[in-house]
Amino acid sequence: MAHRQREISISEFFLKNRHLLGFDTPAKALVTAVREAVDNALDACKEAGILPEITVEVSDRYGKSKVIVEDNGPGIVEDQIARIFGKLLYGSKFHKLSQSRGQQGMGISAAGMYGQLTMGKPLHIVSRVKGDKLASEMYVSIDTGKNRPDIHKKKQLRWDRPHGTRVAMEMEGHHQTGPHSVETYLKQTAIANPHLAITYQNPKGEVIRFNRSTNTLPKRPFEIKPHPYGIELGRLIQMLNNTNSRTLLGFLVDEFSCVGKKTALSIIALARKHSDRELSERSHPKHIAHAQATALHKAIQTTRVLAPRTDCIVPIGEDQLLTGLRKELAADFFTVVTRPPAAYRGNPFQVEIALAYARPGGGDVEVDAGGHMRKRATRDEPASEHLIAQKDEPVRLLRFANRVPLLYQQAGCAIAKAVIQTNWRGYGLHQPKGSLPIAPMAILVHVASVWVPYTSESKEAIEPYPEILKEIKLGLQQCARGLAQYLRRETHLHEEYDRRVYIEKYLPQIGIALQEILTLSDEERDLTIKKLDDTLHRSRTKRGAPHDAERFEDQP
Amino acid sequence: MAHRQREISISEFFLKNRHLLGFDTPAKALVTAVREAVDNALDACKEAGILPEITVEVSDRYGKSKVIVEDNGPGIVEDQIARIFGKLLYGSKFHKLSQSRGQQGMGISAAGMYGQLTMGKPLHIVSRVKGDKLASEMYVSIDTGKNRPDIHKKKQLRWDRPHGTRVAMEMEGHHQTGPHSVETYLKQTAIANPHLAITYQNPKGEVIRFNRSTNTLPKRPFEIKPHPYGIELGRLIQMLNNTNSRTLLGFLVDEFSCVGKKTALSIIALARKHSDRELSERSHPKHIAHAQATALHKAIQTTRVLAPRTDCIVPIGEDQLLTGLRKELAADFFTVVTRPPAAYRGNPFQVEIALAYARPGGGDVEVDAGGHMRKRATRDEPASEHLIAQKDEPVRLLRFANRVPLLYQQAGCAIAKAVIQTNWRGYGLHQPKGSLPIAPMAILVHVASVWVPYTSESKEAIEPYPEILKEIKLGLQQCARGLAQYLRRETHLHEEYDRRVYIEKYLPQIGIALQEILTLSDEERDLTIKKLDDTLHRSRTKRGAPHDAERFEDQP
Repeated sequence: MAHRQREISISEFFLKNRHLLGFDTPAKALVTAVREAVDNALDACKEAGILPEITVEVSDRYGKSKVIVEDNGPGIVEDQIARIFGKLLYGSKFHKLSQSRGQQGMGISAAGMYGQLTMGKPLHIVSRVKGDKLASEMYVSIDTGKNRPDIHKKKQLRWDRPHGTRVAMEMEGHHQTGPHSVETYLKQTAIANPHLAITYQNPKGEVIRFNRSTNTLPKRPFEIKPHPYGIELGRLIQMLNNTNSRTLLGFLVDEFSCVGKKTALSIIALARKHSDRELSERSHPKHIAHAQATALHKAIQTTRVLAPRTDCIVPIGEDQLLTGLRKELAADFFTVVTRPPAAYRGNPFQVEIALAYARPGGGDVEVDAGGHMRKRATRDEPASEHLIAQKDEPVRLLRFANRVPLLYQQAGCAIAKAVIQTNWRGYGLHQPKGSLPIAPMAILVHVASVWVPYTSESKEAIEPYPEILKEIKLGLQQCARGLAQYLRRETHLHEEYDRRVYIEKYLPQIGIALQEILTLSDEERDLTIKKLDDTLHRSRTKRGAPHDAERFEDQP
Repeated sequence: MAHRQREISISEFFLKNRHLLGFDTPAKALVTAVREAVDNALDACKEAGILPEITVEVSDRYGKSKVIVEDNGPGIVEDQIARIFGKLLYGSKFHKLSQSRGQQGMGISAAGMYGQLTMGKPLHIVSRVKGDKLASEMYVSIDTGKNRPDIHKKKQLRWDRPHGTRVAMEMEGHHQTGPHSVETYLKQTAIANPHLAITYQNPKGEVIRFNRSTNTLPKRPFEIKPHPYGIELGRLIQMLNNTNSRTLLGFLVDEFSCVGKKTALSIIALARKHSDRELSERSHPKHIAHAQATALHKAIQTTRVLAPRTDCIVPIGEDQLLTGLRKELAADFFTVVTRPPAAYRGNPFQVEIALAYARPGGGDVEVDAGGHMRKRATRDEPASEHLIAQKDEPVRLLRFANRVPLLYQQAGCAIAKAVIQTNWRGYGLHQPKGSLPIAPMAILVHVASVWVPYTSESKEAIEPYPEILKEIKLGLQQCARGLAQYLRRETHLHEEYDRRVYIEKYLPQIGIALQEILTLSDEERDLTIKKLDDTLHRSRTKRGAPHDAERFEDQP
């Protein structure tokens, strides 16, 4: 058997298992390819501090699709282009702890590999670095046996864009509409990234424009070092072997976040107690044996260290999220909350929740300035049809991780689990056992982290770590309290409206009865009716009109 | 940004994403580690034609676990040991199309990597190749930055076993009981592998023995070449470039299954029509340009080729499956079906289904040889408690892929989807909408294939390809028909039993009434009652007792 043992290239592996990267069906492949290119564009713009302006063009001719994504990012230097687009597991985001869309260095190369597999065509890339006179053009595919880029053609050309990148991919793809479409993906991306402008041309040639609602770039998240509490023994040993520090003290202070000289010294002191061999602040990290490392690991876990830094996470923010939602969704009631940062396995993360509640159709009642109630006009908003559920449907979830919409594998995702595990009946909604609540509502959940634990390489769902579940649930409860208040007011309004309509209907009869009893003239009768009517309105107006967005401070 | 771009080693990737390989929690990690070692042992025994005899030993001291798996397999030659246990994506099963448990070359190295991460300890391996005087002992860990084995110690030693492999791993692990336990995994493995004998020692020191129920080895599945219908354009181009054949004709005949000289010639003739450039049977595969390859690909898809060979799949078989089930499960009714082979994306696969239906508690009625009915004694079978559901619970699924039990991620698996999509109400079971049916039943589904499309590297669920879903559903329907028949008979028996009990209760009263009306003596009255009783029994016996296992021929 020995001679059959062979190395397997990572590209071959994912070529055979392309569903792991999100390329299982032509419809999904198309959305995944667009997502990977847009993610890269947005990450590049963020790094360079550029307000992103992206155009996406999709065509579909009998299952043969072409996707073109162009950005105004900083561009890619020529000798990096081939490896970024033609090699799996190559990138700048894997080795650092920083909030970014990409983290694996696989996405765009995988899209290229899929195109290559189904159509035999390489990726076509044009990129111009700011300040360069010419742009670089390249046709790149992957040598899957060696996981290495193959460059087919390469030249310099003039490009009217001062800087940016354009990638064109041909692939077997199927364009569809609905909740798993490119348009839905882009719409949700626009919600979570209010500073982004997208122009999208669909296969019918229709151009859809998503404008930015702010010109302010989100704060740039900065990079952190691992927190000592999250560290596993094996990783600690690895870090000891790889460090440039020459003393244990230096190692602890330099390689971890939240460890100062004082904390480091008390860790070392404690480790010395656990260890039978000598261990001091001047010990050379590379010469620390296994038993000592174990003692060190134990000491780290039992020493008091500051909680992980959390300013490395940049949430969308309540104001921006509300603006984004209002821009793309029509609803009667919005509520939004940004939770304080937390951490799982030493990785900081932060959760944001928003609810958008609407009552589509004619059920709405409002009170105008004069205190008169009336049914609200039915809204005609086809664009939001996929994002907010109908009255008798389960709520729609808008799931985001580091501002990227997640469209697939909802059932396995921490977000769906947290929503299902929340008791919505307590807040006035109908909820079948073990299911999503039934309501004309959209629940948006955004999880931002320096390392999002996805359930697969295709990055479609978040692993339900207990700490993450807990944070989402707390946020949902906060929002749900606001919703319950709104619903109570709404129900109250509705009941009062029904009562009013009923009384109004019989007011003439009451008038006639009073006229007979008190022998009033016709004018006196009409005056009495009017007075009664006014009294009804006044009693209503005192209570004040509802306001539609509420925010809650965190109550730990 | 350019200088931050870096290559990511596959080991680093999976170290950071260890949940993708099934090592998310200590409890799951323990089961996964046992599974990977047992899978390897069984695959090795199968290859070498050895009746497998495996011992598994698990200890758990406050979360520090040790797993030892020893087999009587053919052993591993010394210079392969390090790479097999200390390198991800290295193995003999990835590059061939043949039914085996392992296919990725990751499992056991991943278990080692997890042990290394959590306890800092290398794997300890002892292996002796048949005929060698001494065994090789080795301590191996992975250099994750380079995905390369590190050998710590290595020596030759005497071992009383004539051939076999023993691997010991230390890791953070948590031993638990219940449906996700090592014991459940081993029990299910024994069901699907009746030729396997396992001795399991759990952390309490208890030894559980699973005996083999047959000494016949399963037929050895043989390897096939890809079928032309499943081939994608990119893969075809790759194969053209990598072949050793020097002519197109030779290439088609040698590299594909089901393509003879005649079929190959008609493919080439058709491709010549589509292509604008010259293409003949003597064209050199490596010189075929993209346009010609596209024409060839098109021609392949439109030429009539024999359906994929399916004798490369070795199902468990109805008899063996039934024997295995009976051995480990106590149930009143069994039914089993092995479907004919089918194919998805050119990959042959075959589905087997079994139902085990029991009525736990005192609800059972049976008819004895003399035609007398009585309640059956309550069974006390704690061992089967986790495998068959209670009366008011959803049915339990026993999922298998290439004879390996799948314990996790049931919701995302093709098997669960197929069971949920089957209309069980039509067969007399209660089934809430969109859920598993409610019944005291276990449904066993085995999917055997040359390439099982798992939903993740941890191999816990099968991707719901339409062809696979369809086959499982057809099998379920066949089994369900048998179950419905059994249930009708059971219901009938129950109704009759209730009637009988009722009549028996009033027989003395009937006797007294008859005595008064017909003025009978006391003896005549008793005789009449006896006659009536006998008549009741006779009417019952005529119908015959139910038999408990049924099999169905395939009805396409």
